[in-house]
Amino acid sequence: METLLNKPRLKSLAAQHRLDALVATSPENVTYASGYWALSQWIRRGPQVYVLLPVEDVEQTRVIAPTSLLDQLVDQEDVWVQHVSRYGFFHVDRAEGAMTPLDDRLLSLFEQPEEKDAISALVQSIRSLGLEKGTLGIDEMGLMPGHWERIQQELPDAKLVPAMRLFREIRAVKTPQEIERLRRVATIAEESVAAALKVAQPGISEIEMARVFHAATVQGDATPVLGCLGFGTRSAMPNVYPSHARLKAGDVIRFDCGGRYGNYRADIARIAVLGEPDKKLAQYHKALHNGVMAAFDTIRPGVSSSAVYEAAMAATRKSGIPHYQRSHVGHGIGLDGYDMPDLTPTNEQVIEEGMVMCVETPYYEFGWCGLQVENTVVVRKDGVELLHREDGALKVLA
Amino acid sequence: METLLNKPRLKSLAAQHRLDALVATSPENVTYASGYWALSQWIRRGPQVYVLLPVEDVEQTRVIAPTSLLDQLVDQEDVWVQHVSRYGFFHVDRAEGAMTPLDDRLLSLFEQPEEKDAISALVQSIRSLGLEKGTLGIDEMGLMPGHWERIQQELPDAKLVPAMRLFREIRAVKTPQEIERLRRVATIAEESVAAALKVAQPGISEIEMARVFHAATVQGDATPVLGCLGFGTRSAMPNVYPSHARLKAGDVIRFDCGGRYGNYRADIARIAVLGEPDKKLAQYHKALHNGVMAAFDTIRPGVSSSAVYEAAMAATRKSGIPHYQRSHVGHGIGLDGYDMPDLTPTNEQVIEEGMVMCVETPYYEFGWCGLQVENTVVVRKDGVELLHREDGALKVLA
Repeated sequence: METLLNKPRLKSLAAQHRLDALVATSPENVTYASGYWALSQWIRRGPQVYVLLPVEDVEQTRVIAPTSLLDQLVDQEDVWVQHVSRYGFFHVDRAEGAMTPLDDRLLSLFEQPEEKDAISALVQSIRSLGLEKGTLGIDEMGLMPGHWERIQQELPDAKLVPAMRLFREIRAVKTPQEIERLRRVATIAEESVAAALKVAQPGISEIEMARVFHAATVQGDATPVLGCLGFGTRSAMPNVYPSHARLKAGDVIRFDCGGRYGNYRADIARIAVLGEPDKKLAQYHKALHNGVMAAFDTIRPGVSSSAVYEAAMAATRKSGIPHYQRSHVGHGIGLDGYDMPDLTPTNEQVIEEGMVMCVETPYYEFGWCGLQVENTVVVRKDGVELLHREDGALKVLA
Repeated sequence: METLLNKPRLKSLAAQHRLDALVATSPENVTYASGYWALSQWIRRGPQVYVLLPVEDVEQTRVIAPTSLLDQLVDQEDVWVQHVSRYGFFHVDRAEGAMTPLDDRLLSLFEQPEEKDAISALVQSIRSLGLEKGTLGIDEMGLMPGHWERIQQELPDAKLVPAMRLFREIRAVKTPQEIERLRRVATIAEESVAAALKVAQPGISEIEMARVFHAATVQGDATPVLGCLGFGTRSAMPNVYPSHARLKAGDVIRFDCGGRYGNYRADIARIAVLGEPDKKLAQYHKALHNGVMAAFDTIRPGVSSSAVYEAAMAATRKSGIPHYQRSHVGHGIGLDGYDMPDLTPTNEQVIEEGMVMCVETPYYEFGWCGLQVENTVVVRKDGVELLHREDGALKVLA
């Protein structure tokens, strides 16, 4: 089946690092590696779910999960992993008579041996795959304090290597399934902005407009995550969140926003102005737009991230904001809102086909307003493909 | 001003543990300690924001934050902390002419010295308060691997003590401001279930009903978080998430749900049945309801958590489900969906006035359905006060 996980890239990068197995521990990496979205791990910090990926035979991949979360493992279509270790007690009752196939599968998982905790289950899984003397790349992000030391103590012959960064490298090149989700969620964000701007009129508050925005997001079966929205001078605050401030004629409306759909994130910006823009506004926005378009013209497989940065900065400065400064002009996006690569002046990471990026040129002028162009693209053989309909041009509202 | 933070409880528990200062590092504890909701820290894992709380003089509390997130610190009404250390570079421009007071405050923060990273800023803050030889309780949950060791290295005379658990103890007794938010978000959850059940009719899918549920949540200015919803036999899955399964006459509909409002969480359950319930369903649900009511009759300041567990279990077994088993019958709730206390058979933590708890008796019977009563109460001098309107009785839909 299609997977979120880029298996060839996993194998090739793990081999480069001479790893025998990888262990995902943070929610993003667990979902990425297995397709499994484990509720408590995502909505709280602390619950432990792991995926053990043996590099030589990825089909032997194993999920380690608390018994109480196994129902989601059998119910989620994204899950491709067949092998499961469970830990902890959880009681369910069982009716007389026939079960659905889903119930049967779940009850069979409940019959597996119960390990006492997450680390015991992980260690036991590593042993069962004969990897206890191997080199193990462990995503350090999702472990709790003391866990790393305990794994090393229980597997004294294993070599443990931090792998959070390596997981990010693997995730940087998206599979077709990931690209379709990123397209869908970016489109939902764009449509949600359009819905919200329909209620723009003098006197509406940021919070009232945000309600319309989020309602459109949930209508698209996405979950609200990022919802920066500010009017007028407030729009200059980089992370402006909706307040009771009210819209006035001539105000800029800045959205920097995006939800989560099928676990994948959106992050786009849209700028509107209530009435005709003055000359400065039109010129500055156009310059920022030119910056993003210059980046698009530059992006193709083989180009460095820093070259994209330079192209965007040069175009923005040349076409209307000579004093423009910015530490980055974008970033990858996927399960996390900031995937690789970062488009900074010093990042020599090479752009690859299948990367998905948010390219952005924000401008924050206190006492005036904030402007921002941010679009999402996938890198194709010969350039970029936009993952939504609009290109971020200034929206002039009547 | 009113604060989320329970300052007297902080001082008294820190003194009991002989701590000179506490350091919040996880998003829940940072928001709790300071009122500051730092966007990137909440929506991603990795970004570092801290709050340093000197126990002797809590008014000297200091927020340590990246420069890029300072705008939220000045814009959020909940923030009571005056002292700020910033780290990292972030560029903004400045218009000619007058600024708003908010812009002025923000620009004055930008003029503070720039520390190179989060740990440097924390260490410098600890020194500036003369605490470098003190006993420091550090919330270990929000740090990144290696941070703990680096703090110890840079402050060799300080005694570092893990304080994640202590923060949970402090947070267990809510301030009036917290209770009002918990009341609001529980009510939003209840109203969202009511809105969703209005569209219950044969043929509607779980996903379609979930859309109505979440739309009502965002109309209440809350963010969707927990949205378990299942029909018929699917409702027996503890963490059932909406699928394309369609509602049939006679089906149970189980909601276990709640969003986030003003950063505070809801977690309630509601059961409906499409048509008249059969005898078993009515009897079992009544038994579970009796269990929660028996817990409510037991809860008052001074009672142990385990006594509440025993009361709920005994009543449920006696009044209709003799084989009822369950590892806990509830938990505290606040910024986190699972605050203290846990209502388990072995927890001797004493119930205190001002605790807010979700009391629940779920029952999962595979091949039949899942039933659940879960209500939220605040502990008052002489018993409990319900934080929403309904008490979780079975809803029979025409």
